[in-house]
Amino acid sequence: MHQISIRRKPVIIGIMGSHKNDSPGIKDAYALGEGIAERGYVLLTGGGSGVMKAASEGAHRSGGLVIAILPSEKKRPLKGYPNEFVDIPIYTGMYDARNIINAKTPDIIVALDGGTGTLSEIAIALKSGTPVIGLHCPRIDHIDDEYEFLSVNTVGAAIQKIDELVKTLKKE
Amino acid sequence: MHQISIRRKPVIIGIMGSHKNDSPGIKDAYALGEGIAERGYVLLTGGGSGVMKAASEGAHRSGGLVIAILPSEKKRPLKGYPNEFVDIPIYTGMYDARNIINAKTPDIIVALDGGTGTLSEIAIALKSGTPVIGLHCPRIDHIDDEYEFLSVNTVGAAIQKIDELVKTLKKE
Amino acid sequence: MHQISIRRKPVIIGIMGSHKNDSPGIKDAYALGEGIAERGYVLLTGGGSGVMKAASEGAHRSGGLVIAILPSEKKRPLKGYPNEFVDIPIYTGMYDARNIINAKTPDIIVALDGGTGTLSEIAIALKSGTPVIGLHCPRIDHIDDEYEFLSVNTVGAAIQKIDELVKTLKKE
Amino acid sequence: MHQISIRRKPVIIGIMGSHKNDSPGIKDAYALGEGIAERGYVLLTGGGSGVMKAASEGAHRSGGLVIAILPSEKKRPLKGYPNEFVDIPIYTGMYDARNIINAKTPDIIVALDGGTGTLSEIAIALKSGTPVIGLHCPRIDHIDDEYEFLSVNTVGAAIQKIDELVKTLKKE
Repeated sequence: MHQISIRRKPVIIGIMGSHKNDSPGIKDAYALGEGIAERGYVLLTGGGSGVMKAASEGAHRSGGLVIAILPSEKKRPLKGYPNEFVDIPIYTGMYDARNIINAKTPDIIVALDGGTGTLSEIAIALKSGTPVIGLHCPRIDHIDDEYEFLSVNTVGAAIQKIDELVKTLKKE
Repeated sequence: MHQISIRRKPVIIGIMGSHKNDSPGIKDAYALGEGIAERGYVLLTGGGSGVMKAASEGAHRSGGLVIAILPSEKKRPLKGYPNEFVDIPIYTGMYDARNIINAKTPDIIVALDGGTGTLSEIAIALKSGTPVIGLHCPRIDHIDDEYEFLSVNTVGAAIQKIDELVKTLKKE
Repeated sequence: MHQISIRRKPVIIGIMGSHKNDSPGIKDAYALGEGIAERGYVLLTGGGSGVMKAASEGAHRSGGLVIAILPSEKKRPLKGYPNEFVDIPIYTGMYDARNIINAKTPDIIVALDGGTGTLSEIAIALKSGTPVIGLHCPRIDHIDDEYEFLSVNTVGAAIQKIDELVKTLKKE
Repeated sequence: MHQISIRRKPVIIGIMGSHKNDSPGIKDAYALGEGIAERGYVLLTGGGSGVMKAASEGAHRSGGLVIAILPSEKKRPLKGYPNEFVDIPIYTGMYDARNIINAKTPDIIVALDGGTGTLSEIAIALKSGTPVIGLHCPRIDHIDDEYEFLSVNTVGAAIQKIDELVKTLKKE
C-alpha cells in the first residue's frame, strides 16, 4: 500500500507517551494508532521510538497518514527520529520546544505512559484548550477542573471518548 | 473532491513569499501550487494570505495536500491564518520562530516576492541544507557559493529545477 | 538606587508560579525574591504579574538584578509583560515556547502556586536537569525518583535548599 | 574585577556576526564590545566563538555585563557555547530558533561579517522593529526603505550611530 487516501481537513489525533521501547503502553499505543487510522483520522506524534513508534506503526498498517513533529533537524540527526512509519516529518530543530507544537496542533490528544516530556505536553495542551484523554494516567493535582482532562483505563474507552469529542469539533 | 490521495513519505515542497494579497507573485504562486500538486508532491507554506494562499489554492484545486506551519495557535487566532485551502494546520503559537520550521522541513523551497520574513526563511533554509529556488529573487550578497541558491525567472524554470532536485532526493 | 552591583557569572535562581495577582503565593514570592537578591543571586522569572511580579519586586527592593524571559515581543505587547521590576527583558515572541527557556536557564528553580504553565516548566526543568524546589507544591505522580524535585513548606526551607544546592554548583 | 556595576533597566546592544575565529570582523567586534561597556550598556550576543567571543571579551575587559542567548542547553553542550566571557547564559536548547530572540531582544543591533545565521537575525530584527547598524555589511536588496538599516564603515561610526539611537529610546 503505497498510497494513502485522506479527507480534506482531516481530524488530527495526537498520541503522546514514552520513547522507551519497553514501555508498558506499547501495545495500547499500537491499537490506538489502528483505531485512529480506521476512522480516517490523521495521527500526530513526536516521531520517536516507544509509544510514538508503536502508534505510528498501528496507524501505518491500517492505511493512515502519520505526521511527526520532530525535535531534530536534517543536518543534526537524532537517533530514532523519525521512526520508519512517519510519512510527513516536520523538522523543527528545537528539541524540547517542539513539545509545545505537539500540544497545540492536534484536535484531541491521548497521553499514555510518559515521563516529564509527556507531562509538559499534557500541561501545555490543557492550557491551549486541546482536550486530553489520559490512558492509565493519573489525574494531576496541579490541574483544576476548568480543564478537559479525561481519565480512561482501556483503549476502547479512549476510542469512545475520541468519537464523542470528534462530534463536537466544527470539522466534521 | 473531498478525498486526497498521496504517496507514503511524499516529497514536500515549500513555497515562501509575501503575505500581501496584491503581491506581484500571486499568479506565479498559484501556478507553482498547481505544478507541485500535479506531481504528487505535498505543499508546505506559512499558511497565511498573499503568495501563501495563492500557492495553497493552486495545490488544492489540483487535488494536492496542503500543510501550513502557522505562527498562531487556536486560542489566539491571527487573521488570515490558516487560509481556507490548508488541510493540515500545524499550530505553533511561536510567531516568527515558526519561520525556522518552514525553512527546515521541506525537501526543496521556492521563494518569491517576499520581505524580511521570507529573507529569514531563505537564510535558515540555506544554513540547514534545504535547496532554495529563487523566482524573480535577486541573489543575496551575504550568501556565498557553498549554498544551494538557484535563481530562475519563470514558473516553468522553477518547476524544472524542482524536477531535477527531486531526482537527487533519497525519497524517490 | 539606580545602580546594581552583581558578581561575574552569578548564580541564577528561577521563580515560577501563577500570573494571578490574588495568588496565595504572592507573599512567599516576595520574600523569596528578597532572599535571592540578598545572597547576590540573579532572579529569573517569566516577567508577568502575580507570583512573577511579587518575586521581582522583592529582588528589586533588595538591590538584585531581575531578568525576565517574556512570551511577547516589543511589536506585539502583552498586558503585564514585562512587569515594572524587570531590568533585563528577554523578548522571545514565542509565547508558551518561552517556558522551555524558563526551565533550562536557571541554576535552581522554585515553583509555587502555579497552574498548567508552571507545571510545564517543572516538567521541562526536571527533564533538563535543573533542580526544582516545590513550595507548597505537591509531588507529581508522573515524576519518578530519578529527578531532583524537592518539596518544602516554608520560604525559610526553600532558601535553605537553595543555599545547599548552590554549594554543589561549579560556579561558586 | 569580580563585580560589575550596571544601571537598572540598562540599554541592551546586540552584536551579531560570524562564529569563525579567523573572521575579518574580530578586531572591530572587540572594539565595539569595549565601546558598549564603557557607555554602561549591556552586551547581548549568541554566545559563541568568532565575532561573538571577541565582542564579549571587549565588553568583559571594560567591565561590562555580557548576556548570551545560547542555541544549546546544559544537558546537550555545544562546543564553544557559552564562550568564557559570558556572564548570563540564557539556555534555549532551540538552536537556530534562538536567532529570533537575538533579533528581538536588543534595543539596537550591530551586524558585522556574518553568514546565513546573521542574515536571518538582520531580517527578523528589521521585521521586529529593532534598528540594525551594518558594519562593512552591504545593504540587502530584499529590504525596502521602511526598515531602519544603517550602513557604516568604521567602528567609530557604528558607536556614533548607537549614541544617536540611544537618545531616541524611552529608557534613557
